[in-house]
Amino acid sequence: MTAGTYQRIVLASRPRGEPQPDNFRLESAQLPELGDGQVLIRNHYLSLDPYMRGRMSEAKSYAATQVIGETMIGGTAGEVLASKHPKFAVGDMAVGMLGWAEMGVADGATLRKVDTTHIPLSAFLGVAGMPGMTAWYGLNHIMKPKAGDTILVSAASGAVGSAVGQLAKQQGCRAVGIAGGPDKCAYVVNELGFDACIDYKAGNLVEDLAAATPDGIDAIFENVGGAGFDAALPRMNAFGRVALCGMIAGYNGDDVSIRNMRHMLTSRLTIRGFIVSEHLELWPQGLGELGALVASGKLKYRETVAPDLASAPDAFIGLLKGRNFGKQLVKLI
Amino acid sequence: MTAGTYQRIVLASRPRGEPQPDNFRLESAQLPELGDGQVLIRNHYLSLDPYMRGRMSEAKSYAATQVIGETMIGGTAGEVLASKHPKFAVGDMAVGMLGWAEMGVADGATLRKVDTTHIPLSAFLGVAGMPGMTAWYGLNHIMKPKAGDTILVSAASGAVGSAVGQLAKQQGCRAVGIAGGPDKCAYVVNELGFDACIDYKAGNLVEDLAAATPDGIDAIFENVGGAGFDAALPRMNAFGRVALCGMIAGYNGDDVSIRNMRHMLTSRLTIRGFIVSEHLELWPQGLGELGALVASGKLKYRETVAPDLASAPDAFIGLLKGRNFGKQLVKLI
Repeated sequence: MTAGTYQRIVLASRPRGEPQPDNFRLESAQLPELGDGQVLIRNHYLSLDPYMRGRMSEAKSYAATQVIGETMIGGTAGEVLASKHPKFAVGDMAVGMLGWAEMGVADGATLRKVDTTHIPLSAFLGVAGMPGMTAWYGLNHIMKPKAGDTILVSAASGAVGSAVGQLAKQQGCRAVGIAGGPDKCAYVVNELGFDACIDYKAGNLVEDLAAATPDGIDAIFENVGGAGFDAALPRMNAFGRVALCGMIAGYNGDDVSIRNMRHMLTSRLTIRGFIVSEHLELWPQGLGELGALVASGKLKYRETVAPDLASAPDAFIGLLKGRNFGKQLVKLI
Repeated sequence: MTAGTYQRIVLASRPRGEPQPDNFRLESAQLPELGDGQVLIRNHYLSLDPYMRGRMSEAKSYAATQVIGETMIGGTAGEVLASKHPKFAVGDMAVGMLGWAEMGVADGATLRKVDTTHIPLSAFLGVAGMPGMTAWYGLNHIMKPKAGDTILVSAASGAVGSAVGQLAKQQGCRAVGIAGGPDKCAYVVNELGFDACIDYKAGNLVEDLAAATPDGIDAIFENVGGAGFDAALPRMNAFGRVALCGMIAGYNGDDVSIRNMRHMLTSRLTIRGFIVSEHLELWPQGLGELGALVASGKLKYRETVAPDLASAPDAFIGLLKGRNFGKQLVKLI
């Protein structure tokens, strides 16, 4: 295996507010020599996820700050081109964290070999991967709904939210989504099987939420924060749970004030902020269940696919504005 | 036992914003005949607590709304004048919920007989009673601090907050309080033994909080909400816990917006609203521990005592403004 060059996107500068194209830079880089235990991967898909916005800032967050001039962080799915790790052979498909790059070298221990016989490779970056696990963990370990409970999911057509609602329906819950625009809402109800979906762009958030949750809300999976979350708090039933997974509404620095905090007290709610990587010991169980549901067609998903590496920044900027529909990917091959 | 009349205070009208004296009415009432299982109590002390403000409104809360024209709800401590309950004899001292009244009749099952040999009767309405249990439960079952943790307590000189900090100190924590004014802060540090106390009226909340919590904050006992809570969120360490017990700042309808919600996510916090009566099974253990600490002088407390029934409304209005210093009581005898 000889070293060569590849294309990658690095963080050029930190955004103020919304990321701009010039915060990113496409450049060539040199592949390192493959060391013992390492694997060379050619990425087929990059995953774009809202959490990356947090990494781009220097603000305190749960994750290390993205270094300027380094490859943008991110999940990847691709094919093994060369291996000095006993568990990986040339031609294997593997999921890893190689970032916004055509290829890269990673320690085999950081890669997960995946079987694409019954599950498309891209799904391992979505419902059968980290976003699916996020949904599975938040639902089963924080929201803990009982059959008959009403659960509310924001960003309901997205990679995480779509899985939360479908899994909750399988547990006998009433699933209500929030999404942006009539097309996404129609998809959430008609394709994913949610009981209702509220279009937050329609301007009747409070009234629409009341109509969709006649028995109140028992648990929330919160991806967005801001006005939708604030409107949901007064509808929470006693001892309601909130799995706080994301606050996309505030990622670019916008105000995400919560006015209805008092309902946290009067309804004795529990709200827990979490990231899915806290409980890696649960991943084998969760990914096993999710993979089986995807393979059998019981867990549906939708993807928005950007066509090449150069289009990744624009696709990412769009993701933060809700321009994607379902899981946002970048296809490299 | 012949029936007679007694004085009581009823809710005359619901307040808009801050309660006013004319929301209350002092009147005479007729004692009912004592039925089987009932006890006639002459109240020595009434307890005034912030939660009563919630009961005065029709807004959804964890408790039933106070009915207009009925005796104001509230905890009481007094002496048995007559008993048709086998566990109570004339002369026994008992704690109950007889409300803002000189005397009253209650089912014996709703009363707790107390031993005033080593603990003053009034303390059973404070640190050795419901407020103490609130502190004990929130600290031990929600905040769950480890030795060395920094805990923050708002309304730190009050009946609940003072107990939280002292109990936390006994567990090896760094205890930081928030209170209003230099006198209260001096008391919190010098008498109660907190490590630091921030005067929220001094106008340097953010800076003072940073100086008092050099290692961040691991758990909060929140009695107030509003600006102090908002300022504390960015200082929370990963996996911090918030026991949300009260939001006095918002009880009169003022805005208690939280701008720093994103820290709930980035620091993966858990916040839980609670009321102490949810876990009555823990009261014997908690009250036993609290009583032993009070009797041995290891749990200090301070009282502000209004002199008679007629002064209760003004004392309650002052309590919501922080005019009291320690547990607010009304002394009837």
